[in-house]
Amino acid sequence: MKFDLIQKDKATKARAATLETDHGVIQTPIFMPVGTVASVKAVHQRELKEDINPDIILGNTYHLYLRPGLDVLEKAGGLHQFMGWDRNILTDSGGYQVYSLSDNRKIKEEGVTFKSHIDGSKHFFSPESAMDIQRTIGADIIMAFDECTPYPCDYDYAKKSMHMTHRWLDRCISHFNSTPPKYGYEQTLFPIVQGSTYKDLRKQSAEYIASVEAEGNAIGGLSVGEPAEEMYEMSEIVCDILPEDKPRYLMGVGTPINILENIALGVDMFDCVMPTRNARNGMLFTAHGTINIKNKKWEADFSPIDEMGITFVDTEYSKSYLRHLFAANEFLGKQIATIHNLGFYLWLVRTARERILAGDFLEWKIKMVQQMDKRL
Amino acid sequence: MKFDLIQKDKATKARAATLETDHGVIQTPIFMPVGTVASVKAVHQRELKEDINPDIILGNTYHLYLRPGLDVLEKAGGLHQFMGWDRNILTDSGGYQVYSLSDNRKIKEEGVTFKSHIDGSKHFFSPESAMDIQRTIGADIIMAFDECTPYPCDYDYAKKSMHMTHRWLDRCISHFNSTPPKYGYEQTLFPIVQGSTYKDLRKQSAEYIASVEAEGNAIGGLSVGEPAEEMYEMSEIVCDILPEDKPRYLMGVGTPINILENIALGVDMFDCVMPTRNARNGMLFTAHGTINIKNKKWEADFSPIDEMGITFVDTEYSKSYLRHLFAANEFLGKQIATIHNLGFYLWLVRTARERILAGDFLEWKIKMVQQMDKRL
Repeated sequence: MKFDLIQKDKATKARAATLETDHGVIQTPIFMPVGTVASVKAVHQRELKEDINPDIILGNTYHLYLRPGLDVLEKAGGLHQFMGWDRNILTDSGGYQVYSLSDNRKIKEEGVTFKSHIDGSKHFFSPESAMDIQRTIGADIIMAFDECTPYPCDYDYAKKSMHMTHRWLDRCISHFNSTPPKYGYEQTLFPIVQGSTYKDLRKQSAEYIASVEAEGNAIGGLSVGEPAEEMYEMSEIVCDILPEDKPRYLMGVGTPINILENIALGVDMFDCVMPTRNARNGMLFTAHGTINIKNKKWEADFSPIDEMGITFVDTEYSKSYLRHLFAANEFLGKQIATIHNLGFYLWLVRTARERILAGDFLEWKIKMVQQMDKRL
Repeated sequence: MKFDLIQKDKATKARAATLETDHGVIQTPIFMPVGTVASVKAVHQRELKEDINPDIILGNTYHLYLRPGLDVLEKAGGLHQFMGWDRNILTDSGGYQVYSLSDNRKIKEEGVTFKSHIDGSKHFFSPESAMDIQRTIGADIIMAFDECTPYPCDYDYAKKSMHMTHRWLDRCISHFNSTPPKYGYEQTLFPIVQGSTYKDLRKQSAEYIASVEAEGNAIGGLSVGEPAEEMYEMSEIVCDILPEDKPRYLMGVGTPINILENIALGVDMFDCVMPTRNARNGMLFTAHGTINIKNKKWEADFSPIDEMGITFVDTEYSKSYLRHLFAANEFLGKQIATIHNLGFYLWLVRTARERILAGDFLEWKIKMVQQMDKRL
């Protein structure tokens, strides 16, 4: 993997960079649409490529491990082949879903036992198996197996958990380095900073993560319910410690405003289910604020969904029509809203990059944060 | 409306024709995808136009009347504008859904009172209101308000109902002729032959329908549970009576085999929810038979969904991937299967037309009926 820092913003800590893997160049800042179980929900791969156009998407190890399972993925030649996506894929380690979705999970030093949320079957994830599973899925970027602490989390638990995450990281690295990539292209391991919302723990964790000298680094355990200000504070502390010449990935974040604020703190990569999940509930993100398209006020509003026209759905369909599709519970409503939201998120990070390159990111960010903080 | 008979098949009663309205030319035989409530379920308008490519789609008056309602449709400038579809639209009269979906329906000479299946609200459809509603929806082709008898249906009821349908037709024609089109383009009324599965009633009804000299004629009350042979028998009797120089539309039919057999009897137009509804249940139609994609046998079959590659989904996705999407209950599975099935249905009628023009329709039909009558 190759990371080139192209431009550092003067007024903030924002950066424009490129990250290159065997599946192509990723221009950062980047938002990675979440393709949970080998599909970005309600979006065709063709639309993802041609209309939304991200350089990388994310897959969830927990979901992919359960369905279609490693056997099918391996026979297919990995997730890229299986789902027909020839650009980059990052997988999480499976830990987060084990903690949030499965029943009867038990966390021990050795790893985590859990029951599938689908059929109750029993499984075990360890740092080692998480590496093997992600190698088999075939992700370009593989995440370390960590414990993502909840919010709020008491200090002692956060500290203990962080140390275990660090020990698990050592096992991940050791196992990762002793196994070859599976499908003929390079795979890269990113470690994850934890430490809940405690400054000293975040600092300690960031220093430990930096010390292992991985090719990229991630910040986990945020966007789990804490106030945005606390998230920004933690993100800033960590970004200031993580090496400047490596990409920084803030996991599971967030709203369009969260993303701009974290770009300003030096984050390069993001993922979140918000644009896709909220779309399916009728919530649209735009440059001028959010829209609840189910609202009666749009019933006879025949103006385009979004005058900006970032993707084809924005100008081909009206607000009135989209509202109707949600009222009648038609599939197409969710499809349209999802493409709109992902198109907007990708526009947002692409434009952030342009503004960083142009040198006026801060003014633009301030204006956008104001604009987007409205309900239309 | 203009109807040109281009070619009559020598070995069968099949015809290739063109039908022209203010929304363009329809090449027949044609299959009309069903856009129930202003959306062909799970399909973007762009895919409908560019990938599936029908010259006409169908909308359901009952559903559109309830949601979004006539007020919104009228403000939008009609259904074409509302949903963003600039080709032809045919609407049914609403009768069929009133009989099959709503509660407490009461059929009287004056019309039908019914309760909405959505909120239980009370409504009344008459021959006159069905004309007004369809004028407001803005269909290019408007269907007469009829009673669609169930199967089986006793002779006396079928006869009485047929006569009422004929009386209703007179009221439809009279009201239709006394009202102008709403949005600046021509609208055409098609009457409907009824008579259940009774030859003498079908003959009598076809003669009555032919006598009103409409610009096109429809056959209703079939594909309601009767054996295919009975459907073909009725279709043949009726087609032989309906004028040759007008399009013939067989409502609600059917399987790919049903369609080819009825083309051979002289039918020009079809509609059916089967390709879309069955798609959402994981059933695919192909030139070599049907596929239940949920079947475990496809789990590790990485071959394309359909080697024929009629639409992009056929070659961009594998059977294994599509099976996985259904197993994981992902939206995208239904989207892919729907595009595949509609693409196949449109390929089938387009190819039937080509074979009629080439003069070898019968051989091709015999081969296709054999091939398609299989489970893969």
